[in-house]
Amino acid sequence: MIIIMEPGATKEQINKVVEHLESLDFKININYGEVLTVIAAIGDKRLVQPHSLMSFDGVREIKSIQDPFKLASRESQKEDTVVEFSNGVKIGGKNRPVVIAGPCSVEENIDGLLEVAHAAKEMGAQFLRGGAFKPRTSPYDFQGLEEKGLKYLAQAREETGLLVVTEVMDTLDLPLVCDYADVIQVGARNMQNFKMLKAIGKTNKPVILKRGPAAGIKEFLLAAEHIMYNGNPNVILCERGIKGFDSSYTRNVLDLAAVGVIKKYSHLPIIVDPSHATGRRYLIEPMSKAAIVAGADGIMMEVHNNPDKAWSDGAQSLTIPQFKRLMKHISKLMEVLESEDLTEDIVSYAK
Amino acid sequence: MIIIMEPGATKEQINKVVEHLESLDFKININYGEVLTVIAAIGDKRLVQPHSLMSFDGVREIKSIQDPFKLASRESQKEDTVVEFSNGVKIGGKNRPVVIAGPCSVEENIDGLLEVAHAAKEMGAQFLRGGAFKPRTSPYDFQGLEEKGLKYLAQAREETGLLVVTEVMDTLDLPLVCDYADVIQVGARNMQNFKMLKAIGKTNKPVILKRGPAAGIKEFLLAAEHIMYNGNPNVILCERGIKGFDSSYTRNVLDLAAVGVIKKYSHLPIIVDPSHATGRRYLIEPMSKAAIVAGADGIMMEVHNNPDKAWSDGAQSLTIPQFKRLMKHISKLMEVLESEDLTEDIVSYAK
Amino acid sequence: MIIIMEPGATKEQINKVVEHLESLDFKININYGEVLTVIAAIGDKRLVQPHSLMSFDGVREIKSIQDPFKLASRESQKEDTVVEFSNGVKIGGKNRPVVIAGPCSVEENIDGLLEVAHAAKEMGAQFLRGGAFKPRTSPYDFQGLEEKGLKYLAQAREETGLLVVTEVMDTLDLPLVCDYADVIQVGARNMQNFKMLKAIGKTNKPVILKRGPAAGIKEFLLAAEHIMYNGNPNVILCERGIKGFDSSYTRNVLDLAAVGVIKKYSHLPIIVDPSHATGRRYLIEPMSKAAIVAGADGIMMEVHNNPDKAWSDGAQSLTIPQFKRLMKHISKLMEVLESEDLTEDIVSYAK
Amino acid sequence: MIIIMEPGATKEQINKVVEHLESLDFKININYGEVLTVIAAIGDKRLVQPHSLMSFDGVREIKSIQDPFKLASRESQKEDTVVEFSNGVKIGGKNRPVVIAGPCSVEENIDGLLEVAHAAKEMGAQFLRGGAFKPRTSPYDFQGLEEKGLKYLAQAREETGLLVVTEVMDTLDLPLVCDYADVIQVGARNMQNFKMLKAIGKTNKPVILKRGPAAGIKEFLLAAEHIMYNGNPNVILCERGIKGFDSSYTRNVLDLAAVGVIKKYSHLPIIVDPSHATGRRYLIEPMSKAAIVAGADGIMMEVHNNPDKAWSDGAQSLTIPQFKRLMKHISKLMEVLESEDLTEDIVSYAK
Repeated sequence: MIIIMEPGATKEQINKVVEHLESLDFKININYGEVLTVIAAIGDKRLVQPHSLMSFDGVREIKSIQDPFKLASRESQKEDTVVEFSNGVKIGGKNRPVVIAGPCSVEENIDGLLEVAHAAKEMGAQFLRGGAFKPRTSPYDFQGLEEKGLKYLAQAREETGLLVVTEVMDTLDLPLVCDYADVIQVGARNMQNFKMLKAIGKTNKPVILKRGPAAGIKEFLLAAEHIMYNGNPNVILCERGIKGFDSSYTRNVLDLAAVGVIKKYSHLPIIVDPSHATGRRYLIEPMSKAAIVAGADGIMMEVHNNPDKAWSDGAQSLTIPQFKRLMKHISKLMEVLESEDLTEDIVSYAK
Repeated sequence: MIIIMEPGATKEQINKVVEHLESLDFKININYGEVLTVIAAIGDKRLVQPHSLMSFDGVREIKSIQDPFKLASRESQKEDTVVEFSNGVKIGGKNRPVVIAGPCSVEENIDGLLEVAHAAKEMGAQFLRGGAFKPRTSPYDFQGLEEKGLKYLAQAREETGLLVVTEVMDTLDLPLVCDYADVIQVGARNMQNFKMLKAIGKTNKPVILKRGPAAGIKEFLLAAEHIMYNGNPNVILCERGIKGFDSSYTRNVLDLAAVGVIKKYSHLPIIVDPSHATGRRYLIEPMSKAAIVAGADGIMMEVHNNPDKAWSDGAQSLTIPQFKRLMKHISKLMEVLESEDLTEDIVSYAK
Repeated sequence: MIIIMEPGATKEQINKVVEHLESLDFKININYGEVLTVIAAIGDKRLVQPHSLMSFDGVREIKSIQDPFKLASRESQKEDTVVEFSNGVKIGGKNRPVVIAGPCSVEENIDGLLEVAHAAKEMGAQFLRGGAFKPRTSPYDFQGLEEKGLKYLAQAREETGLLVVTEVMDTLDLPLVCDYADVIQVGARNMQNFKMLKAIGKTNKPVILKRGPAAGIKEFLLAAEHIMYNGNPNVILCERGIKGFDSSYTRNVLDLAAVGVIKKYSHLPIIVDPSHATGRRYLIEPMSKAAIVAGADGIMMEVHNNPDKAWSDGAQSLTIPQFKRLMKHISKLMEVLESEDLTEDIVSYAK
Repeated sequence: MIIIMEPGATKEQINKVVEHLESLDFKININYGEVLTVIAAIGDKRLVQPHSLMSFDGVREIKSIQDPFKLASRESQKEDTVVEFSNGVKIGGKNRPVVIAGPCSVEENIDGLLEVAHAAKEMGAQFLRGGAFKPRTSPYDFQGLEEKGLKYLAQAREETGLLVVTEVMDTLDLPLVCDYADVIQVGARNMQNFKMLKAIGKTNKPVILKRGPAAGIKEFLLAAEHIMYNGNPNVILCERGIKGFDSSYTRNVLDLAAVGVIKKYSHLPIIVDPSHATGRRYLIEPMSKAAIVAGADGIMMEVHNNPDKAWSDGAQSLTIPQFKRLMKHISKLMEVLESEDLTEDIVSYAK
């Protein structure tokens, strides 16, 4: 930690800071500059509330040196985390990117869900997604089928062998969702629902943690840290677009560079959700391809058997024929990347 | 709702949209322009997922006309909502702005809390704030005293007569928090924790709903709508700064104009939290005054008996002497505004 | 244009708006709803300041229907614009993406520039970039070699046959820059320097227009419109990252979805600058590949013979060996995309 | 400057950085931590491109200590800058906040301008504003009367004695604008038009520098530094709203806390423009009052004799009666603040 004192800071003020830090077992090194004095404090920052130092007289600025996340950091674990499932599917590391597809919400008519699930299976996707509990901005929108929806998902899994991804919105529902899901999803608006993160940390269930719309990389990884710190290492990050200043052309801003940043600073797998990021069907194919080329460990997309009648997010859902066409292109892209050894570069750039 | 068709939309495409809307009891009016055709659909938008229309062929854009919030809107209730407490304190309408003061977290040493509470009472504040459950970005930071903290707050209430404001972070804790608090607070990061909003809606407890760091006015009022729709009308909004592109000088960007916007579009009271908005102690006084002059129904600020040793947010907490000085200035300001009839203008600008 | 009246708007207020619009030759269609009255005005919006209508009593909101840009819009020209150079190089349409490479600034030592230029030529780049006039946030930073820098660039062109891209910062310098450059560049911070855009519009010089850090798609295309409206159709757009809320991991947020959006709404070519977008060397390769796969018509990147000693932006510059390695991978990627017909999908997605 | 090395940085890498800095006359202090090594370099950072150090192997992060602005900083000048005019009007320091009022654009009909000017004079404003050169997002909007507009402004000055504020958009127009204006204005979109800032720096004309919509405090003060560094100390800063993520309720986000931040870090006067910041007429009064209470040295607002027919920005312009009403309230507010010594607190909070 670096403490920068105000230009006119007195010896006494400097000493008070130094004593406080020494009492917390920091090793101190002081640079008296002509203009400013700088105190370097080496030790475990986690013992001190760095911001509390800001209230000492004469302190101008505190700069932390170490990343505040620890378990999630590449420093603490060099090897990529790979999340494995009982059927052999793997996310992360050098494994081929996975595909997660399905409707936004699970709806009353299970046939639609099954139709999508069969198409997903046929085209090589590994996961079926679908919301049974739906976070909706408005109370007047469809709120989800809840347990019935979970049952439908389980039935689709039985028929297709796909793994099921579904969202949990509240600590109270966690045991129920865990009973049905292979992967639980934490929505963007719940990324800092810390009580729920802790509860998830106490399960061992793989979890897709979506980036909050206003979350920086540090806050995103610290949310993962909450889960890991409580015992669950199976965290899969998901970039799904951040809030931009103009939502008339895309719903959010897909921050694709975050994939590379995460790979550099963390060992956790990261997938990309172009459906929520853009909110526009015509952008899903190019952004899916871009995500793969940028090194993402998977993509998640919305597919609906009849988007015109979808109960939520129809506009950003692919139809089944669109999805099939996209999967063909994506599979071909993955193949050529692999055969030309271009994935090597992707995977290695973060090193 | 206005549906704008693509320039080359066919008659068939137009008819398909019209039929769909008519089947939902919308009254339709079509304008065939030289370039574009525009369909106006008058009816209850809440019956249709406007975005689902986006997936119809030939549809270019959907524009909604009515605000999506209803119970929270000024249209549905012209009179300002006033939240009243058993001891006669009132928030909203033409009442003098209230002051909510206290430490960020309730800490182990109750004497500090009591010292702050007595100072708050002495200077004319009506509410004591303090977190027993703390949402913390990092799992390594202090997480709150939980029930013990609630008990400390109750003791401070008993000694001073101040009303208690404290945060609830999870549906599971809601009954416990309701037992102790006069007002429950929903933190910014939980603004869209919809399950918890619903549960709060089913109590009758006054609630301070903090604006999410990336929430627009519409999303903010829709979060209030979730609470109101479930039966609880006692919602007090709180502007606490939104995410900006530069956090090196202030923690967030205080969006003070939101006070006026909320007053125009909603009847709910709105208070301002300059401590979290700015994260800088020296900005609390000017921003508190600005909030009052801008028409806020109250201000909420952090005060600590010993900010240097605070377990959280020390840098943005006022010391007790600073708080007393600020309260003197603010009281004087409120008085002169009232005696000069300048509040009238403030209160009426939204009309 | 759609004019939405306030819920309580009177007949007189409605009539006043209608008369005003009819006097401007708009065709009017009124929908009297139960709650709101909506006026649709079909005609040339460009004749009216839509915002001026906002000041009529009883008007609640104005919604424009047509995009405000015209010459730049896909509606006005279905075919992709292709910018051609005398040596046969082409940007846009179905042409292979071009590569623009070179140092941030042209520096005193011409040998470094020539070394980069020869490497660029060798690896298949078509353009050499380098700043002779440098927009610098601080007056204490290097401001550019001005005409001497332009001469160096011209010499590098002579030796290599590369086309020269360089920035113009001021209307006064435009004739000089046009004398030396094959393509002039408008920097992000000058995207709305309208006087300069107009002056550029009066030349016929190809121009790379960089997106402003806070510019929405509409503002971006309107800036292009300023150039086109004044007579110059040779506009190449450049996505270079927008302002985000966290600049600690990347300098800006690369908005890669903008490539697809621009392709849908405009016929102009669009290139991507991953160097400025990310500000991090390790992100240039993955973001370059992602840009190509997303349909960009070119990429622009910073390369320096000795980044440690660069006078500007060293941290985001590739070394020559890094650049060569990246070019090999990118060329391979372009080849496989072409041979597998995967470009077809990229190019066509916007249709 | 603080250089933080990567966890695994070698002795050689550390030495290379140290040697480079020593060659630039920095005094070096190294802290070898258990995890990270931190190099403190005390000296004149302006001699080194801090970012160029980022490209040294093993360097993880560079943190600058001193603010990069110097002439504009409070450190270099403790006393508030006061900009004085020949007629005795003063902006800054302990002087009463000034008022700048007038139409967005100067229009064909001079009578309207004169009517506004007389009202401004009558109500105690000191400055008349009006654009003769208009930066317009669209080329189809009114671009300004140019010299004719300047003449109209001069005539209004002659009749009323008000000082004239008008915008310069291009270096080429600067001499002409200087001939007519008492204060030249640099628009938000030109805040980083560095060539023009330099040219303005070479005049001695007072200048209002508007904050760019995506400019942080540092970039804002560095833009001022460009002017000051070239010789002109008469810079008046203007907060006019920054880009937010939701422009449906206000045009921009008024960052009122910036007033206090600027007062702390700089000695330059700062005024507030609530018209452009909010874009909504009903918000001008509360935000004007809030600005005054927050310590602004002046407010600038748009007033039009007939906003319904204004050629630009009608919706955010006050009518003359609205302006008069607002001026009465504001004058009363200034009076009570002064008589109650509440200004003292405002002025002093930044100390």
